[in-house]
Amino acid sequence: MKVDGFELLENERLDDLQRNNMMIIQDPDRFCFGVDAVFLSGFVKLSAGMRCADLGTGTGILPILLSAKTDCRSFVGIELQEESADMARRSVRGNGLTDVIDIVTLDLRKAVESFGASSFDAVVTNPPYTAAGSGLLSENQAKNIARTELFCTLKDVVTQGAGLLRPGGFFCMVHRPQRMAEIVYELKQVRLEPKRIRFVHPKKSKPANLFLIEAVKDAGSGITVEPPLIIHEDDGNYTEEIKKDYGF
Amino acid sequence: MKVDGFELLENERLDDLQRNNMMIIQDPDRFCFGVDAVFLSGFVKLSAGMRCADLGTGTGILPILLSAKTDCRSFVGIELQEESADMARRSVRGNGLTDVIDIVTLDLRKAVESFGASSFDAVVTNPPYTAAGSGLLSENQAKNIARTELFCTLKDVVTQGAGLLRPGGFFCMVHRPQRMAEIVYELKQVRLEPKRIRFVHPKKSKPANLFLIEAVKDAGSGITVEPPLIIHEDDGNYTEEIKKDYGF
Repeated sequence: MKVDGFELLENERLDDLQRNNMMIIQDPDRFCFGVDAVFLSGFVKLSAGMRCADLGTGTGILPILLSAKTDCRSFVGIELQEESADMARRSVRGNGLTDVIDIVTLDLRKAVESFGASSFDAVVTNPPYTAAGSGLLSENQAKNIARTELFCTLKDVVTQGAGLLRPGGFFCMVHRPQRMAEIVYELKQVRLEPKRIRFVHPKKSKPANLFLIEAVKDAGSGITVEPPLIIHEDDGNYTEEIKKDYGF
Repeated sequence: MKVDGFELLENERLDDLQRNNMMIIQDPDRFCFGVDAVFLSGFVKLSAGMRCADLGTGTGILPILLSAKTDCRSFVGIELQEESADMARRSVRGNGLTDVIDIVTLDLRKAVESFGASSFDAVVTNPPYTAAGSGLLSENQAKNIARTELFCTLKDVVTQGAGLLRPGGFFCMVHRPQRMAEIVYELKQVRLEPKRIRFVHPKKSKPANLFLIEAVKDAGSGITVEPPLIIHEDDGNYTEEIKKDYGF
């Protein structure tokens, strides 16, 4: 079935990204992108001439959003699951981004082996949040793989990221705050120095439930803790920043 | 000179802590406590029966405030500079806290050697913020010692803290956010696992300029990023939390 120039398979739907008329194909039975990817795409700073890899691209949401929000014109989305990679490729084609985004079916643990060391200027990732064994698994294995560290651990993601980046290259990730200390530690272990961090709070009186971090390969130490990203006012309405920058 | 039961030396002044009628002796030519110590005293959780050390107690501000804000009744304040330790002792006497707070003149790098390993349930510290060599020194050496890592580094402070604490004991520190990643890394290196962190922002639209962290000796990983502590509303007035909890 073809909808608005996008080839859809049974059970798939076409969602409007509310940005440059871009659309994305999603399957409700597989992992669908959330605010995590949207907030990360607003946090990442990319410029023209950079080459950027997305580790575990899923539906391709990060490179598609980043192609709209930044001047970067060269993305590689790496995805383990062929069904997701295929969906991502069809979204890339539908959006006319085949010259900009390349979707590769690959176990991200082989990224450095496949692409070579220091082959990217930036790496972005919205990895599985839950350590294997510390959360419940569903009966849906496609979602399990996207959410739980079944096929890649945090260490795999940061190690591959560090290997792919040139010195001075940028590693950007969204993750759960519960793992922030572990993440900072693992990043520093592989010489990805945390330089910017931003915490997302559902309200200003609530603990953070997401965070965004940028680390720079081989940089000196010193980090900026950016203003908190607060989703709702105390009265439950979206904050001005959320309405203005994210179109909620 | 005796003022309200406090023995003051020339150039010293007596400041009201706005809490349980407590006062503190300070000397404008030496390091005077700031909001840092006040915010840390609001962040720390201590209970009756605990024994708490303060690494680099200065005027004794932290044990004095914590004796008012918590049920803890056993503090040791460790201070390198005898003039500061003497001021702290006179503040302890003036507040009638000699049974609660012991001020010891000691290089904190010898704390474990002097007090023994696992001898405390909690360690608090408002250490020098600036790495030696990375900031300007003033002509006032007493202030330099309090502000810059001339006589103890971050590593010294966390290593001594880890040594002093029993398993499950609490390490609480206030510091500059610029050093957060380094601090998380050093804490984890000595098995002080970061469990709670809170960032202080001058306004909600500004980067953090202080942060509070609690680490637990030998704990499993997993940290809570508490709601941001925001000092001023956008209109410049103090926020409700600052007025209510800190009496600004």
